[in-house]
Amino acid sequence: MRMMSMNMRMLKEWVGDPVFVARIAVTDGMADDAVTKLTDAGHEVNLEPNELNGYDAVVIRSATKMTAEAISAAPSLQVIGRAGVGIDNIDLDAATKAGILVCNTPGSSTQSVVELTIGHLLASTRHIPTADRDLRSGNWTKKSLRGTELSGKRIGFIGFGRIAQGVARIVKEMGMEIHAFDPYLPLHVAEEHNCNLHGEVNDVFGLCTHIAIHCNLTDETHHLVNSDTLAMMPGIGMDGVACGNHLVNCARGGIVDEEAVFNALQTGILTSAALDVFEIEPAVDNPLIMHPNFHGTPHIGAATKEAQARIGEEMATLLIDYFEGRVPRSAINQRELR
Amino acid sequence: MRMMSMNMRMLKEWVGDPVFVARIAVTDGMADDAVTKLTDAGHEVNLEPNELNGYDAVVIRSATKMTAEAISAAPSLQVIGRAGVGIDNIDLDAATKAGILVCNTPGSSTQSVVELTIGHLLASTRHIPTADRDLRSGNWTKKSLRGTELSGKRIGFIGFGRIAQGVARIVKEMGMEIHAFDPYLPLHVAEEHNCNLHGEVNDVFGLCTHIAIHCNLTDETHHLVNSDTLAMMPGIGMDGVACGNHLVNCARGGIVDEEAVFNALQTGILTSAALDVFEIEPAVDNPLIMHPNFHGTPHIGAATKEAQARIGEEMATLLIDYFEGRVPRSAINQRELR
Repeated sequence: MRMMSMNMRMLKEWVGDPVFVARIAVTDGMADDAVTKLTDAGHEVNLEPNELNGYDAVVIRSATKMTAEAISAAPSLQVIGRAGVGIDNIDLDAATKAGILVCNTPGSSTQSVVELTIGHLLASTRHIPTADRDLRSGNWTKKSLRGTELSGKRIGFIGFGRIAQGVARIVKEMGMEIHAFDPYLPLHVAEEHNCNLHGEVNDVFGLCTHIAIHCNLTDETHHLVNSDTLAMMPGIGMDGVACGNHLVNCARGGIVDEEAVFNALQTGILTSAALDVFEIEPAVDNPLIMHPNFHGTPHIGAATKEAQARIGEEMATLLIDYFEGRVPRSAINQRELR
Repeated sequence: MRMMSMNMRMLKEWVGDPVFVARIAVTDGMADDAVTKLTDAGHEVNLEPNELNGYDAVVIRSATKMTAEAISAAPSLQVIGRAGVGIDNIDLDAATKAGILVCNTPGSSTQSVVELTIGHLLASTRHIPTADRDLRSGNWTKKSLRGTELSGKRIGFIGFGRIAQGVARIVKEMGMEIHAFDPYLPLHVAEEHNCNLHGEVNDVFGLCTHIAIHCNLTDETHHLVNSDTLAMMPGIGMDGVACGNHLVNCARGGIVDEEAVFNALQTGILTSAALDVFEIEPAVDNPLIMHPNFHGTPHIGAATKEAQARIGEEMATLLIDYFEGRVPRSAINQRELR
């Protein structure tokens, strides 16, 4: 049965030429249109695989962990497709050693994360979740909900890639001054975005009342937001308004030390904290979540119809390119594999 | 006692010249700096007046209702200062007939309302209050919280004054197409803001998946958002995404028919509704507030440190100008009084 299937795979024709029929396991879901695009290109897609062995490719989101063990248990794999941006759930070294190409879809969710970040910033400074909670409890707490404007304040980006640049463009329009720490960013890119690029991360915390995290989780960025860096934040905007300090993280859990954030909310060093990502997900039984000056969302940065459609479309294109012998556009370890 | 006080008022000197010492009643609070500015200019400010009779000026926000009765009960009044924008709580005809000048502070809260409106739009499309409520209940509802992007959608403004123009500038940067109904707006102002101005309000509802209310409450705008206009909304963005329909009102209660909004949320005609203002305030025992796809704030559009400081500063300037014989900048019924 397996042999016959193999023969059929090699003999299938597509646009006149024989095409390798790849077996693709999708572990964390994929947009319908993207699945159709793959099957239309002649490939076999299983949306509910029991194991990864026997598949040529696997498409994952953040839930599936491609550890060294998981990789060695699937010797047939040629490609790991990460439908999304962060690849901290993939053991890249193990994949490279096993000769497996790793691809992601870096641009597809940018706009969605940009919009969620701005939503979290404004929900924080204007107490929107608290206000709604109070209304639902029958309390008209207008007098206790005085907020502050983003206008006239400094925002500090930790990481100034696509997403941060998108957020910067919009909050600049709201009247914020843009600062960033990003050791990998060419200065001219910062300048194009009217961004003050700093060589020391502490300078950003020391200047900015609003901090937005938009970097990867690495050993370098783990707990980069901690009690020391939070304590540097000025609490007063460049307009002289005592707006307090505000933190938003829509990047990755673990960059922010959640215990330090809880304590900073308790002492008033932080006026608000908004997290879409957590050190442990799903985040339940997390004391931070219940803090009155905290609000959060359950890792929904890319959870829009638009982002999921673009991610699926981009992933399908990457896999079709690979199996038709072209180099996929966002192949992360292509160079190492050669 | 009253006579002696009157004499003292007329004789008080300020910067060399005799100044009329106005008695100013402040009924709904005023920023400290603004009170200081008034007293520094020689005036008497009472932040807890028992009645308005005997005062030369009264400073109100939205809570105090200056009805014809309230006006006739205070024959000494020369000025009503509305610390804020909307004057629907002032009987303007009665004030004019009584020879009372009415001033407001139209520009002072613009930025704050702009930011709250964008916050509400994004809180709606990304389910931020729902997500936070779920997290606090111990539920990681990532899968049920798929949202949509503002990018690629049409927003329709009902009223395209300062606030709507500010919102438009920012959501344009997010990728929205701008539409508006505003019978009082010169076409060139719309053009300067890349706004498609429509002659019929129904055209805006028929085209736009996102509606933001930024007009005054008048007989003309009362229940302008109703079951008929909501039913016209397309539910599909200009990008072809089925984003549903979304309503935000940070202007005045009464423009939106809340029963129609409740029903539209029930039937799915509206995907979300976010209100900062309500037909009856404080809004308690309002069934709309408990709807899962609704979220709200308790009339906090101008409730920022920055707006309150600017409103106080502007109001103090208006009153000082008036009592020193100059025409205050934003005197609403100046022409009618002449």
